[in-house]
Amino acid sequence: MMESTETTASGTGAMFACGAQSIRFPVPVFVRESASIVGKKEGEGPLGEFFDVIGSDELFGGSTWEEAESCLQRDSLHLAVKKAGLHTTDIRYLFAGDLLGQGIATSFGLMQYERPLFGLYGACSTCGLSLTLASMAISGGFTDIAACVTSSHFASAEKEFRFPLGYGNQRPLSATWTVTGSAAFILSSSAGSSPRALITGVTPGKIVDYGLRDSMNMGACMAPAAADTIARHLDDFKRSPADYDRIITGDLGQVGQRVLLDLLSERGIELGERHTDCGIEIFDCKKQDTHAGGSGCGCSAVVLSAFILRQLFTGRWRRVLFVPTGALLSKTSFNEGQTVPGIAHAVVLESPLPAA
Amino acid sequence: MMESTETTASGTGAMFACGAQSIRFPVPVFVRESASIVGKKEGEGPLGEFFDVIGSDELFGGSTWEEAESCLQRDSLHLAVKKAGLHTTDIRYLFAGDLLGQGIATSFGLMQYERPLFGLYGACSTCGLSLTLASMAISGGFTDIAACVTSSHFASAEKEFRFPLGYGNQRPLSATWTVTGSAAFILSSSAGSSPRALITGVTPGKIVDYGLRDSMNMGACMAPAAADTIARHLDDFKRSPADYDRIITGDLGQVGQRVLLDLLSERGIELGERHTDCGIEIFDCKKQDTHAGGSGCGCSAVVLSAFILRQLFTGRWRRVLFVPTGALLSKTSFNEGQTVPGIAHAVVLESPLPAA
Repeated sequence: MMESTETTASGTGAMFACGAQSIRFPVPVFVRESASIVGKKEGEGPLGEFFDVIGSDELFGGSTWEEAESCLQRDSLHLAVKKAGLHTTDIRYLFAGDLLGQGIATSFGLMQYERPLFGLYGACSTCGLSLTLASMAISGGFTDIAACVTSSHFASAEKEFRFPLGYGNQRPLSATWTVTGSAAFILSSSAGSSPRALITGVTPGKIVDYGLRDSMNMGACMAPAAADTIARHLDDFKRSPADYDRIITGDLGQVGQRVLLDLLSERGIELGERHTDCGIEIFDCKKQDTHAGGSGCGCSAVVLSAFILRQLFTGRWRRVLFVPTGALLSKTSFNEGQTVPGIAHAVVLESPLPAA
Repeated sequence: MMESTETTASGTGAMFACGAQSIRFPVPVFVRESASIVGKKEGEGPLGEFFDVIGSDELFGGSTWEEAESCLQRDSLHLAVKKAGLHTTDIRYLFAGDLLGQGIATSFGLMQYERPLFGLYGACSTCGLSLTLASMAISGGFTDIAACVTSSHFASAEKEFRFPLGYGNQRPLSATWTVTGSAAFILSSSAGSSPRALITGVTPGKIVDYGLRDSMNMGACMAPAAADTIARHLDDFKRSPADYDRIITGDLGQVGQRVLLDLLSERGIELGERHTDCGIEIFDCKKQDTHAGGSGCGCSAVVLSAFILRQLFTGRWRRVLFVPTGALLSKTSFNEGQTVPGIAHAVVLESPLPAA
């Protein structure tokens, strides 16, 4: 005889769970430290002063674009561990991924650390995916310390998804510019001396497909997924946008932002000035010719590390909803005429400072 | 002042953890049901009678090889949910992945279910990765029910990693044959009416690279990772091979098996007849011209679903260590002359029957 399945939505996770999609952690997980490394162009953007390291060239010591991206992951994790005053052997589990086929930036970048690795793929949402799973591992009591690492590289991404750089292809204004960068985050069940933020909840996202097929307008492809995750999050937690200082998507860019705000408005949710997007923040699109904004799973990761965590750490912001967004296409799926579905994973980040 | 990092190895996870790499679940996670779908060639192999569905052609209703693999994932999950007497809405979280660039078999195969998705990539170890993370999510109290889905397809894998089928390229005897198949597993905190097995522990693996570069001998590339994970597992749990009825790797094939047994023997661990390999079990290599054996993340998944769980369910085996193995290469990394590192994730599966 089957037991009733009606207990599923609340289930054993009832003490943590709000609704069927989100998790409220009974005890916050600490973002103990982080580090970001970016390319020259990102360093010349509006957030340039906040990144830990700005590369002097785009190869970062590698001999190919893929190796360059591996070096970014290797170095951002090294720096984050060092800033946290830890050793790499203190990291019990790694949660990491990138945009390249078969995640080679991660495999070749992190293998030297010889730590157990959970390889992830959520396109440009991978930073949110990694923070979500690492928080679950810590909150579940399976490790004290975990690290999350993600990356993207303009040149490896152009090669992987579009055209070799040498083609000098033209890009429409709806296209985004893949960020060259990597950030690593040290998550822990204990605060350490000076935690950057607390993770108090997550809303893992579903794939949402509005049938768009334009890989040069990925903001529009991903916006429906972001809208779905944000709406679901607010519903699960019984919150309104006013409960957040900022709701920050990953890389919708200027076109995707308009779609997101419209879609949420149709559901009666007005984000207004509370919404921003890592892809919009990282570049001065007019001066830097980056069109709709930055993108890539390095984009949301480096903006989180360098900018968002800084606002939380100083108490300027009390609580943000960080919603990295991913476009689930490959060169093959695009060439076969498939749609570009989106996914977005939301993470609640709060200031470690006591409320004033 | 930094707090001591010496607590890391035991940490808050002490009640679950054995050593620095493994997790012992305080309460077992149930494998409530599973389903497997395979291609014609797999159906003609020694395990043919055990698979739930054998396709009549290799497209499974799709119009491309990639779509065919998506159909495999879609259908195996549908069947597993149905066999478990559940609805897809009972599945709170999906943990899934495949071998294709950017995981498109998973994205396009599972999006119709509209469930939150954790996208994974561990090459042919992905089945173990998915079972590990889903078990952690359930044991941590974050969901009652989760599903794990993985797949591979001979034709999509040849296209992704080697040559288009039309080339009719020759393969050395050390090469393996990518299994066309997908399996889905329903994991739960509660037993349901007739659970197939219990998951009582896991040993997530590290990347191990012996510097091999031969993508036509992936068994040898992955064997060092399998040896590392198995040795670490036995050490963490203070067990010997005799504590397991079988220790079953994913897709080392006949060449990789010899490397594995030698490497473990050097460490004083003799697996002997207790070792088998899903890639060796699934094909009759001589009759079916599959050379060293089967491979692909569908290989270990369908053998687990159809054969290994059956032995546990009937009590013929009491406890097995399931160790899917992955080769972390891409077409790009291979063409750039990179090595082929390996990874292996171990899962302890026990019979649901009381000991005789």
